[in-house]
Amino acid sequence: MKKIGLITIGTEILLGKTVNTNQTFIGNELTKIGFQLDESITIKDDNKTILGAFERMCREFDIVISTGGLGPTNDDITKKCIAKFFKKNLKFREEIWRKIEKSYTQKNMEIPKIVRTQAEVPEDFITIENNFGTAPGLHFKEKGKHFFAFPGVPSEMKPMVKNYLLPFLKNKYRNRSFYLKTIRTFGIREAVLAEKLDYINESKNVKIAFLPQLGKVDIRVYGSNKHEFHFTIREIKKKIKKFIYGYDDDTIPKLCHEKLIKRKKTLAIAESCTGGLIQNLFTNHSGSSKYLLGGIVSYSNNAKMKLLNVREKTLQKFGAVSSQTIEEMLKGVKKRFQCDCAIAVSGIAGPTGGSEQKPVGLVFIGINIDGKNIIREYHLSGDRMQIKKKAAMSAIHLLLKNI
Amino acid sequence: MKKIGLITIGTEILLGKTVNTNQTFIGNELTKIGFQLDESITIKDDNKTILGAFERMCREFDIVISTGGLGPTNDDITKKCIAKFFKKNLKFREEIWRKIEKSYTQKNMEIPKIVRTQAEVPEDFITIENNFGTAPGLHFKEKGKHFFAFPGVPSEMKPMVKNYLLPFLKNKYRNRSFYLKTIRTFGIREAVLAEKLDYINESKNVKIAFLPQLGKVDIRVYGSNKHEFHFTIREIKKKIKKFIYGYDDDTIPKLCHEKLIKRKKTLAIAESCTGGLIQNLFTNHSGSSKYLLGGIVSYSNNAKMKLLNVREKTLQKFGAVSSQTIEEMLKGVKKRFQCDCAIAVSGIAGPTGGSEQKPVGLVFIGINIDGKNIIREYHLSGDRMQIKKKAAMSAIHLLLKNI
Repeated sequence: MKKIGLITIGTEILLGKTVNTNQTFIGNELTKIGFQLDESITIKDDNKTILGAFERMCREFDIVISTGGLGPTNDDITKKCIAKFFKKNLKFREEIWRKIEKSYTQKNMEIPKIVRTQAEVPEDFITIENNFGTAPGLHFKEKGKHFFAFPGVPSEMKPMVKNYLLPFLKNKYRNRSFYLKTIRTFGIREAVLAEKLDYINESKNVKIAFLPQLGKVDIRVYGSNKHEFHFTIREIKKKIKKFIYGYDDDTIPKLCHEKLIKRKKTLAIAESCTGGLIQNLFTNHSGSSKYLLGGIVSYSNNAKMKLLNVREKTLQKFGAVSSQTIEEMLKGVKKRFQCDCAIAVSGIAGPTGGSEQKPVGLVFIGINIDGKNIIREYHLSGDRMQIKKKAAMSAIHLLLKNI
Repeated sequence: MKKIGLITIGTEILLGKTVNTNQTFIGNELTKIGFQLDESITIKDDNKTILGAFERMCREFDIVISTGGLGPTNDDITKKCIAKFFKKNLKFREEIWRKIEKSYTQKNMEIPKIVRTQAEVPEDFITIENNFGTAPGLHFKEKGKHFFAFPGVPSEMKPMVKNYLLPFLKNKYRNRSFYLKTIRTFGIREAVLAEKLDYINESKNVKIAFLPQLGKVDIRVYGSNKHEFHFTIREIKKKIKKFIYGYDDDTIPKLCHEKLIKRKKTLAIAESCTGGLIQNLFTNHSGSSKYLLGGIVSYSNNAKMKLLNVREKTLQKFGAVSSQTIEEMLKGVKKRFQCDCAIAVSGIAGPTGGSEQKPVGLVFIGINIDGKNIIREYHLSGDRMQIKKKAAMSAIHLLLKNI
């Protein structure tokens, strides 16, 4: 297996102003074709630092990929560093210049002088076509190792990786088999999950990794032996079936969205503490208008009474955060929207508003499917945003599991 | 200036399944207090790799921060590697165990056996309290260098960095003068902004950086000379005042939230294409119940008519995405909620649903403040999520500017 290292060049990423999504993209694309990023480093736009990183990475890895710093401005120094490191002169290439010229004249734009340096390429390097910008990518082979440089702008880099790097790797290294599946679970803690799956021994050829997220845990199973891989997946499914909601790119809202469309059910939502988040999660999906009639954020008691017909007596006797209020919210939203399914949520997201009897994190969630209510009480932990997210996810999960 | 290196331990990040937002967070927090991340590396959950990274980073940097791999499962090996690298035994600490026990018993949950290892700490290490999980953070000093280890789960790591690492660095290294301000703009492109501010020369002591985000551009001004720093800020303010909405951690929803509370105005919201996002952005802020009475997501035409009294004639003649519909949505939501201010949004988020006359990205936004309407037409670019976000931000910005 060839070892692959990634170098991201860009001070703005170290300053925390830009998220390194290039790493995520490249890592994911490599994984999909059975390769794996072995290390990724992010460094400053600084000559000495860049040369030092090239030196170490080219020593330790078979394939080194760099992104960033190929633009025409003063702080773009990657190409100069590459030329220096591989001891090559920069040569002006007429055919690249003509392409750059054309891209400007087509838009009736004057070419800034500094852009001319974009047509300079280290001698003996292969250039990689950039259809969305002026900086070509670079590829060089030395002593059986390969070095690639791409621009940092994601919209330029991504097509170059897809059209050049991935086909190159696939053709060059007919790699061994590689199997990968992510099993996604909800409502069970990482430690409990790990204990339940403890007996599934990790073989040399198949590995299991647990990836906890907010209220969810992903189990990644990957390896090179087809038989062992499928066996492991079957074993996991057997043991924790009821906690699995999906696989790979599945998300709880996406699955619920698809199920509602498939079952031809309409939905309306009454939210209090989640404050619009549940509706937002559904409407992120194109086609949600097929089932989502709408919803009400009844943040005030007055809105609960006026828009959802929650009775004043109920609010006074049991409070806004109670199963009784949820029951009336469900009834109210069903009546308003004449929908097949309904969700109602009321809780205390904090950090204020809690009491001893009703602490921050107490959330009541109700769903109604064709007239039948299911109402649950939840005790969620975290800050305001986390409680909102967990409550929203729990509500959508409850609908997903019961529809 | 102390050199700081970050080690992110987690195969899932290299596989491209998780975005490394921890790096962004830590980089940004350090920048805010005048420190800078010099290098960031992401490595696999693998003994040899981790030990190798510890060795190199502790040699090259004064302060080394690691995140990830502190959980209780088999693939969490960071603590063992730390113990091995610093040649310390792991010792069971009773007081940490009691805290973990309590967190389980409070929720009436049984403690999985493997969690017990979470109370084991390398000898002579300081532990850092984790209020949102079972893994304590670790801190060790050796030969004038400092090593820190935090869990990889962002909700656990973030408060630990804020409550422990940042105060520690600030106290320990009274660093040279450092001035930093982020000027936040909305509704102007990066290139136009850069041209307008071209005359403000970057001195050696003060730097300007442009950080474009979705529809917004932040201008970061930073440097070591107090006088030049303040001069630069004044110059920028003079030149682009009307595009500035805030500074540093200000966000458009946060400023609007504060202004509504200050002005004692109530608000209700009618959303169509933003599908709950605007309400969600307000309700992310604690205290939003002081002004937000509630809102309606009128995704279907039927909901627009029934809940907001939009006339069928209006929908037929002008369509749901029109200034006429927005006007009636505003009227409807004002009547329903009896609020001082109202927001109404209707548009085409795509990718489907557009036409030649009404393409994807066309959004009408209206606000009403004490009876006075302002209605605007927007042409937004991007995918579904980007259009939703831009529309929501434009709506809240319109209210912020006019209230």
